[in-house]
Amino acid sequence: MATKEKTTEENTQLKDIISHAKEYGFVFPSSEIYDGLQAVYDYGQMGVELKNNIKQLWWKCMTQLNENVVGLDAAIFMHPLTWKASGHIDSFNDPMIDNKDSKKRYRADVLIEEKAAGLENEGKVEEAGALLAEMGKLLEAEDLDGVRELIVREGIKCPISGTTNWTEVRQFNLMFSTQVGSVAEDSSTIYLRPETAQGIFVNFLNVQKTGRMKVPFGIAQIGKAFRNEIVARQFIFRMREFEQMEMQFFVRPGTEMEWYEKWKAARKLWHEAIGIPTENLRYHDHEKLAHYANAAVDIEYKFPFGFKEVEGIHSRTDFDLTQHQELSRKKMQYFDNDLNADGKPYGNYIPYVIETSAGADRLFLMTLCNAYQEEEITEGEATKTRTFLKLHPALSPVKAAILPLTKKDGLPEKATEIFNSLKFDFNMIYEERDSIGKRYTRQDLIGTPFCIAVDHQTLEDNTVTVRDRDSREQVRMPIADLRTYIDNAVNFRSILEKLA
Amino acid sequence: MATKEKTTEENTQLKDIISHAKEYGFVFPSSEIYDGLQAVYDYGQMGVELKNNIKQLWWKCMTQLNENVVGLDAAIFMHPLTWKASGHIDSFNDPMIDNKDSKKRYRADVLIEEKAAGLENEGKVEEAGALLAEMGKLLEAEDLDGVRELIVREGIKCPISGTTNWTEVRQFNLMFSTQVGSVAEDSSTIYLRPETAQGIFVNFLNVQKTGRMKVPFGIAQIGKAFRNEIVARQFIFRMREFEQMEMQFFVRPGTEMEWYEKWKAARKLWHEAIGIPTENLRYHDHEKLAHYANAAVDIEYKFPFGFKEVEGIHSRTDFDLTQHQELSRKKMQYFDNDLNADGKPYGNYIPYVIETSAGADRLFLMTLCNAYQEEEITEGEATKTRTFLKLHPALSPVKAAILPLTKKDGLPEKATEIFNSLKFDFNMIYEERDSIGKRYTRQDLIGTPFCIAVDHQTLEDNTVTVRDRDSREQVRMPIADLRTYIDNAVNFRSILEKLA
Repeated sequence: MATKEKTTEENTQLKDIISHAKEYGFVFPSSEIYDGLQAVYDYGQMGVELKNNIKQLWWKCMTQLNENVVGLDAAIFMHPLTWKASGHIDSFNDPMIDNKDSKKRYRADVLIEEKAAGLENEGKVEEAGALLAEMGKLLEAEDLDGVRELIVREGIKCPISGTTNWTEVRQFNLMFSTQVGSVAEDSSTIYLRPETAQGIFVNFLNVQKTGRMKVPFGIAQIGKAFRNEIVARQFIFRMREFEQMEMQFFVRPGTEMEWYEKWKAARKLWHEAIGIPTENLRYHDHEKLAHYANAAVDIEYKFPFGFKEVEGIHSRTDFDLTQHQELSRKKMQYFDNDLNADGKPYGNYIPYVIETSAGADRLFLMTLCNAYQEEEITEGEATKTRTFLKLHPALSPVKAAILPLTKKDGLPEKATEIFNSLKFDFNMIYEERDSIGKRYTRQDLIGTPFCIAVDHQTLEDNTVTVRDRDSREQVRMPIADLRTYIDNAVNFRSILEKLA
Repeated sequence: MATKEKTTEENTQLKDIISHAKEYGFVFPSSEIYDGLQAVYDYGQMGVELKNNIKQLWWKCMTQLNENVVGLDAAIFMHPLTWKASGHIDSFNDPMIDNKDSKKRYRADVLIEEKAAGLENEGKVEEAGALLAEMGKLLEAEDLDGVRELIVREGIKCPISGTTNWTEVRQFNLMFSTQVGSVAEDSSTIYLRPETAQGIFVNFLNVQKTGRMKVPFGIAQIGKAFRNEIVARQFIFRMREFEQMEMQFFVRPGTEMEWYEKWKAARKLWHEAIGIPTENLRYHDHEKLAHYANAAVDIEYKFPFGFKEVEGIHSRTDFDLTQHQELSRKKMQYFDNDLNADGKPYGNYIPYVIETSAGADRLFLMTLCNAYQEEEITEGEATKTRTFLKLHPALSPVKAAILPLTKKDGLPEKATEIFNSLKFDFNMIYEERDSIGKRYTRQDLIGTPFCIAVDHQTLEDNTVTVRDRDSREQVRMPIADLRTYIDNAVNFRSILEKLA
């Protein structure tokens, strides 16, 4: 439902962040030397550290803080019947239409949305609303002929050919497919998973039995998923290859709303604990529920392009497990020997599922947008703009930079000695080129929380100055205190304790 | 070059390890409820922790111990020209042959290898060697007709139809392909990367420039790769979807052999540092070098099915960067302002590359095989076999189990208190079901280094017993000492220091 409502200022801020991400090694366009691959990105030397920190923190929060949540790493390739059961083969579609003159293909619903946005810009707000409502009804009824008629009636033209010479509307499946196996008649079509959740569902009993798990329990997973998005945009917000961090929590039927509320609250707290201000987060209840859900909410973050989903919490009922049971003819039941109000065991049932589904790339983008700071500072008589990344120190790619004030007098040797004593514990940078001011600036731009300067006094009394990224204040401290000082700030422990 | 030389004992040991991996949540067959997907596996709740530990340790060793090595996370999807440049589109093939009667397809070289193995078993060792040598020559000359003639001449029959009615031999590309994009004429064939290395090469200048890296420097990456293997076997040793841990190290031309030797030694040390005995590791020089290499060696581990590659160290010359430069028309050069013997800067050149390429899944299997122990122990008058995983504590999925001796007298409460005080630092299990002996056994089976028993004395003096997995010895210690005691054993620091 993307409309052209973005202001110039918002666009500028996103552009600045994209340039910054490229210039300082966070995100590069994929295969850039070959002019890129649409809607695919690579994480650079700083980006990979930030992303790994986000993923590892999420993992620890899920599995270490919750005694009844364990991990899983299912393959991207799965048996094709998985996607029959989940409904993806039959209904994971976008409605597409071709213009016969330009031979270009479009998402039919996007064409209509753009028309509606145009009407809105002309002040015809009611008309626009009516158009969107009509489209919504037609799509819900899967009336593709009706959608085409709507496009024709509204006189929507192809932006390339300028004509209204449209084909029929057809459904286009968003899954990528490939052929596996070489034996001609044995080779079969398999899909790149469009979501990681099904890897958890098909392994539900494997994990429950081999891990002796008792309901309620959860299975957490981080992994790649793939969707052949037609309209991929907004940088890494919507990509064709992306990474999910999902947890499926299995509960006794009838208790799902209680757990839904619990996880809904817990997950918002998590985003706040990594430094996202409450006012930039909000819940957005789904107006129309997916076929498998009886409750669903998004946690949205205020991106430069508006409030958008970063994570969804969904009450998926027993839909998935039931579907897999039917198609595989394997019982997906759990025997619950806890006693009910009548003093009898709850017995056999298919558990209900609460899902928390976060996009690792979206959390990365949220973290980067939230950290990107420009402030006016005065240096002597000059005023300038300082750009820095105010990342939570636990997420910062580099924890400390060791900087000898000059390249001589034994300062590099002393600095190297400090570097070597801390490198087992922290990811650090040693840097001796350029002035100390320039080196501070470079660390600000990649979000390094601490700059440790080694000067002549260090040689005398084994103390260093530690500059704080956010306040730019410097404190002098013994080298022997550095490890604890840095560790207190960067260790996940502080975040975990907040959430326990 | 797999032959049927495995002894029954070796097969049994691999079978035992596969069952153990399944039964205790390390590795499940993919999509098992749908009867599996050939050569694809999922990592269970214990497996994912072990694999993550291996990956994180490798990552820290590469990036934190080497100031001049940084990370990267390139996407699986890349521009298709990448694979033209690398040679994968033209020559990443296996020779295949079909039997016209059974309609079954085989790898032509494997048919001949099996024939040779048969000859060897009959004692015709020289004949077998001659056959393999002849095949090697034909393959090198890409003489596919010659390979077919050899199959016919040797009277090799299809195991299904029993006939020698063969088709021609054809090359079969091992890359998985898929279609990206929906606009009919814009949609294009892309490939699932068959190796992660190319993601590093195409980003060479992005990382070098934005990270201000000076040659020599390295880029490390962990990620999935995919190969449509015809003969996939030996559990997770050869899978269609697998994970690589690769580092490409860029050096000044002419210095490559020196770095090749350095990394060759460093990587073998790494395997020893995680607990693999030296006698179970060996170097194996490549007899025939790949088109891009001027030196190449495998580090092999003694699996139950023989010494097999777990990691390769390759001197890749400037082949890849030169190929990308030619195809992309982007300069892949580095300006080296260090001074040569004549006091002049080395100037512009395309760096040479030393690659260390390890299989994460193979290291996982190596670690599991190495850890799997069966020992005879005496309990009272009975002798029994104890099975346990002697994993390096830094790699163990679970670091400690907290076990109240009984379910009453406040012991569970006290145990929970200890659990909660340590859970921010370590992945732990709390377990109160069954006898303490059974609980010890379960922890042995998943390789937990420490079992912490909470008994009545604990309530009096705040001490617990800590049982060591390998020696089964118990020591009594204050609760206050637990964190440091466990940390000393499980922290990556001990391994990193050994390798620094």
